[in-house]
Amino acid sequence: MEYDSPYGNKYADLLSNVSNFNIIESTLREGEQFANAFFSTETKIKIAKTLDEFGVEYLELTSPAASEQSLKDLCAITKLGLKAKILTHTRCHMDDARKAVETGVNGIDVVIGTSSYLRTFSHGKDMDYIIKTAGEVIEFIKSKGIEVRFSSEDSFRSDLVDLLNLYKTVDKLGVNRVGIADTVGCANPRQVYELIHTLRGVVSCDIECHFHNDTGCAIANAYTALEAGATHIDTSVLGIGERNGITPLGGFVAKMYVADKRYVSGKYKLEMLREIDNMIAEEVEIGIPFNNYITGFCAFTHKAGIHAKAILNNPSTYEIIRPEDFGMTRYVSIGHRLTGWNAVKDRVEQLDLVMTDDEIKAVTQKIKTLADIKPLGIEEVDTLLRNYHREL
Amino acid sequence: MEYDSPYGNKYADLLSNVSNFNIIESTLREGEQFANAFFSTETKIKIAKTLDEFGVEYLELTSPAASEQSLKDLCAITKLGLKAKILTHTRCHMDDARKAVETGVNGIDVVIGTSSYLRTFSHGKDMDYIIKTAGEVIEFIKSKGIEVRFSSEDSFRSDLVDLLNLYKTVDKLGVNRVGIADTVGCANPRQVYELIHTLRGVVSCDIECHFHNDTGCAIANAYTALEAGATHIDTSVLGIGERNGITPLGGFVAKMYVADKRYVSGKYKLEMLREIDNMIAEEVEIGIPFNNYITGFCAFTHKAGIHAKAILNNPSTYEIIRPEDFGMTRYVSIGHRLTGWNAVKDRVEQLDLVMTDDEIKAVTQKIKTLADIKPLGIEEVDTLLRNYHREL
Repeated sequence: MEYDSPYGNKYADLLSNVSNFNIIESTLREGEQFANAFFSTETKIKIAKTLDEFGVEYLELTSPAASEQSLKDLCAITKLGLKAKILTHTRCHMDDARKAVETGVNGIDVVIGTSSYLRTFSHGKDMDYIIKTAGEVIEFIKSKGIEVRFSSEDSFRSDLVDLLNLYKTVDKLGVNRVGIADTVGCANPRQVYELIHTLRGVVSCDIECHFHNDTGCAIANAYTALEAGATHIDTSVLGIGERNGITPLGGFVAKMYVADKRYVSGKYKLEMLREIDNMIAEEVEIGIPFNNYITGFCAFTHKAGIHAKAILNNPSTYEIIRPEDFGMTRYVSIGHRLTGWNAVKDRVEQLDLVMTDDEIKAVTQKIKTLADIKPLGIEEVDTLLRNYHREL
Repeated sequence: MEYDSPYGNKYADLLSNVSNFNIIESTLREGEQFANAFFSTETKIKIAKTLDEFGVEYLELTSPAASEQSLKDLCAITKLGLKAKILTHTRCHMDDARKAVETGVNGIDVVIGTSSYLRTFSHGKDMDYIIKTAGEVIEFIKSKGIEVRFSSEDSFRSDLVDLLNLYKTVDKLGVNRVGIADTVGCANPRQVYELIHTLRGVVSCDIECHFHNDTGCAIANAYTALEAGATHIDTSVLGIGERNGITPLGGFVAKMYVADKRYVSGKYKLEMLREIDNMIAEEVEIGIPFNNYITGFCAFTHKAGIHAKAILNNPSTYEIIRPEDFGMTRYVSIGHRLTGWNAVKDRVEQLDLVMTDDEIKAVTQKIKTLADIKPLGIEEVDTLLRNYHREL
């Protein structure tokens, strides 16, 4: 049975790109800004190839201006001949742009802070200066036949009129994309919808969005941005980045899979997600969060009796993601005080034991009583069921 | 400097309860459904007391019908005389309600599945039966002078007209709250806004919301529900619950703190959050996710040169949560290839070394070159700075 919702896509929004979006995978840029991240050239190549195979449309790498090795690694990756377009992320500055165009990248993501905070405490430039520099940098990159994105930083704390002015100007200059960035992770979905919806009416180019996750809205904001007409979403594997990071690739894919299973399954190799999460977790020496989307250890574990019963009848009751689509498996836990007789019955049948419903209800009571003191492992439950059956 | 956003609370929505909400803390109910959870009586009491001290308005506990010990533990906790109201969560069934009213609870949260999935594959009851049973159970609980909430399960895959009918009926019967539950974690913020907004016009009682996090929207949905007029939000510590869990207490508090710092700081002891997250992580034998809100190890770590510079000038540039409000500290990382001279300058001053800006730029280049091969620990950076200073 397909996922269905009375509020779902029955009458899709005209603006919505929920079924028509690109991923800009930034593990090799934003991800490098994660506290634990240090990627060797070899590792970067492995990550790039793996994400390319998964099917992301873009890979974003650290600026060649950051360090000598960053420059060399970027050149090495543009030479791999991947299907994904290779981007680098630089300050809106001619020095950086000149370096970047020589690396063989398909596109350059330029960025400048536009909030009063960043204008005062970071670069100290006013809006006129920003517009003038942006123009110069964009014309230069375009003259080299390279894709260009122009983004503000901290967009949700920038003046709306300044922002729209700036984007209207760069759109006329022919940028491929403008970028909206929630650099501090303060935005909420309805603000996102409003800003992207407004911007969609102002520019004709694509719209890229970058959401930090400090207040837990990075996935929801990405989804809502697509509803409002955004076209590109930045992700990183496990969400790694500055502070607690950005929209995680796996979580974003989970959300989009639920919104349009056919589209998402068609363009990404979903069964690679576990390998991808494991690879990055190992490289940056972190554990996969217990509650991680899809690949966390308990993502498909069902426990309460009422859930277990329904899941065994039809997994769609308490599951909107089919674990097998991601190469994962479902687990129904029964050795605990919240268990129910339907779940126990299922196990009895798996063990090929023959019992009446009343007998199963009685042995379930036994499990609950024991598990009220200490939960039972599946081996203990099985032994208990076999012994009970033998005694019958 | 206070957090400020051009889209912020300048013109607050009339319906919004962003600055007027209650937390129903369900670690002792939903949290017990987490794969690893088994709470002894002692542990339950410790958790209840700690969350009460933190300031949550309600504590929700497992149904007394689940097991003998669940019943005893519930009675023990109602006798503690906590400030928080004690709730238990039961099926919409007279047997369960009769048990629950004898435990001394302040309120009973009754629930029944209303989606076609649950009606077909779980309890097999039709809407007429649901309305009839609901009426009986509600009247009974009210007759005992106990608070009653009536919730559907899987509300976002239920028929809208059925739902509104049911809620209108129970509202007239005098329930204290109705509940909307995204049991499978499929809802997105704009659906939530629409449903809660519609419901707000239909019932006069309070509205409680329960969001699962399978697709990463549990915090955003909770926030958006409050914007639309919901009054109560279910949380659990670290979000533990069925599958990958629900809206996490810490992440929800982070979001609400950013929305209204004064209100949230006034009603909850924010500096207890770390102790609370640690306590539950230990009890259920999991690590705190690396990217956890506020208490994750990198929540306040700044790395890229451009961020570090601005943070040192004014933390509000790249930080919307003041770490000190939660008893946490900020960390600016400098021993890596993305570092910048402003961050290094700050460290030089902390070490009380005297150098010119040009000297600091030169030593920064040295750090970047070394860190391009392997990142440096803070001790290594300090040694390098001291040696460089000595050689000047």
